[in-house]
Amino acid sequence: MWVFSHKEIQNAVRLDPEAVRAVEKGFSSLAEGGVRMPPILRVDVPEHRGEVDVKTAVVKGEPYFAIKMSSGFFHNPERGLPSGSGMMVLLDVETGIPEAVLLDNGYLTDVRTAAAGAVAARHLAPAEFDTAGVIGAGAQARHQIRALTLVRRFRRILVWSRNRERAETCVRDLERETGVEAVAVSDPESVVRKAQVVVTSTPSSRPLIRKEWLHPGLHVTLMGSDAEHKQEIEGAAIPRADRFVCDSREQSLRLGELRSAVAEGWIGKEEKVTELGAITSGRLPGRTSEKEITLCDLTGTGVQDTVIAILAYRRLRNRGDGTRF
Amino acid sequence: MWVFSHKEIQNAVRLDPEAVRAVEKGFSSLAEGGVRMPPILRVDVPEHRGEVDVKTAVVKGEPYFAIKMSSGFFHNPERGLPSGSGMMVLLDVETGIPEAVLLDNGYLTDVRTAAAGAVAARHLAPAEFDTAGVIGAGAQARHQIRALTLVRRFRRILVWSRNRERAETCVRDLERETGVEAVAVSDPESVVRKAQVVVTSTPSSRPLIRKEWLHPGLHVTLMGSDAEHKQEIEGAAIPRADRFVCDSREQSLRLGELRSAVAEGWIGKEEKVTELGAITSGRLPGRTSEKEITLCDLTGTGVQDTVIAILAYRRLRNRGDGTRF
Repeated sequence: MWVFSHKEIQNAVRLDPEAVRAVEKGFSSLAEGGVRMPPILRVDVPEHRGEVDVKTAVVKGEPYFAIKMSSGFFHNPERGLPSGSGMMVLLDVETGIPEAVLLDNGYLTDVRTAAAGAVAARHLAPAEFDTAGVIGAGAQARHQIRALTLVRRFRRILVWSRNRERAETCVRDLERETGVEAVAVSDPESVVRKAQVVVTSTPSSRPLIRKEWLHPGLHVTLMGSDAEHKQEIEGAAIPRADRFVCDSREQSLRLGELRSAVAEGWIGKEEKVTELGAITSGRLPGRTSEKEITLCDLTGTGVQDTVIAILAYRRLRNRGDGTRF
Repeated sequence: MWVFSHKEIQNAVRLDPEAVRAVEKGFSSLAEGGVRMPPILRVDVPEHRGEVDVKTAVVKGEPYFAIKMSSGFFHNPERGLPSGSGMMVLLDVETGIPEAVLLDNGYLTDVRTAAAGAVAARHLAPAEFDTAGVIGAGAQARHQIRALTLVRRFRRILVWSRNRERAETCVRDLERETGVEAVAVSDPESVVRKAQVVVTSTPSSRPLIRKEWLHPGLHVTLMGSDAEHKQEIEGAAIPRADRFVCDSREQSLRLGELRSAVAEGWIGKEEKVTELGAITSGRLPGRTSEKEITLCDLTGTGVQDTVIAILAYRRLRNRGDGTRF
């Protein structure tokens, strides 16, 4: 049994093309029925505005599977602590014996979530475009733009956040890290109307994107909604798009944008939707025209955790890292 | 963040009166509504006859809560490996930040399960009796008898197992460890008819105890059934008993003896049953007469994991054990 520290993991794994390929392959397995992924275990600690999710997925052909704990405790910032933390455990798929504990403090979740954004953009964003936009200015908003640079080139980034100061900081960070010009704008409408590819990464529980703002050629990746009370886009926008894609139909119906669209009566519960894995595996096409409007709702799946944890473990062992117990 | 090894944990925690008290207090909290315990997350790996359960419970007033992973992979013995393994993680209840990883390999589950048996027997077994019986001869069968010696004195132990050789080994181990005379018998009927307190601890999926064998003054603790396909007692025996008690009504209905009794039509799904915590908290009485027939179905609850993990963590830190990350 190996235990790896946060620092070791950060040094071994970055958001890079191999991480994106691993997550992409994971989505394909999910679509091809090669994944066993039970519903998320969730425990709420409302007295401290806290929640913990436990996710897992067994991916056919992989020697290990991850069990991931991730928490969000929203009073933490008042104490000078990050709201999110967590860790992963890798178990041997043949014996169930724990193989590794990855004390990543949520870092691998950031990487695999950003990698999923890159996968969505690779298949659904226009091949060429000028302006990317991001709604939200947190860590994952930055990761998403970095991820986008792995699969597309663009000249400008628009950033909107409810908090103008955070938006400005995000702009400076993104310019420094990507070398692309970034600008903070005053409302989400400007982001959506002026950009061809938009990523939302907020904890919003009310829609930030209106259907009227959608325009031909737009792709939006919706990262934020991953719980029953969250929503980033009007339900009415979903039938307005040419394609609605999600990482997991079942999760999107329970926790993501499909949930609110169904609740508002814009689509039926039985509506067929495309899962991202059907595209990554080649069974269905990605973007089919310059004018298509595409949406991709990512709720975050256990399969992403399993593939990123396996990638991390392999690299960490190759580097000779870890403490043995 | 602290990591503790299997050996450190074994040296720090044993099945002792403090562990029994901690688990008893946990049951009281559960009955008083002071516990948030989401349904178990379960992942099956049928290609390797494997299953992993993840349990958790937030107990009011406790500074931490545990997330426990426990696995059973039933091809492992063919490879010379134990079928069960697992570990626990303690999270800070105010911040969600992981505080400790307990690499106990299932040891703390054994302790808290045995402690629950002691709690059941303390409240439901006759105050005085001669003969205890155990059906099953595995590790937990032994723990259960040891647990019984913490709360009652008796003169004889009857052991039955499907495998006679294992029963004989169990008899020798129990005699050495408890100093009580032990005898292997040839069928479960003899155990039930001749003993006043019986514990079942098997992975059986067919009833081992028949209702005709129940006799006045008998108490049976049913430890084995903790999954949809398991059963240790005839459904018909449940209305035959004067009291049916369980650790968690919801879990017993889903995974335990209530599930099979309802499925067989012996009791209704809405039947009121007593939870052990209502007795430990003093709201309902335990055994009320010498002649009462009592049954107690224990499926294993996240609250037991949380309280034993906290006890372990406190003792380990006091000893100066652990590796800091």
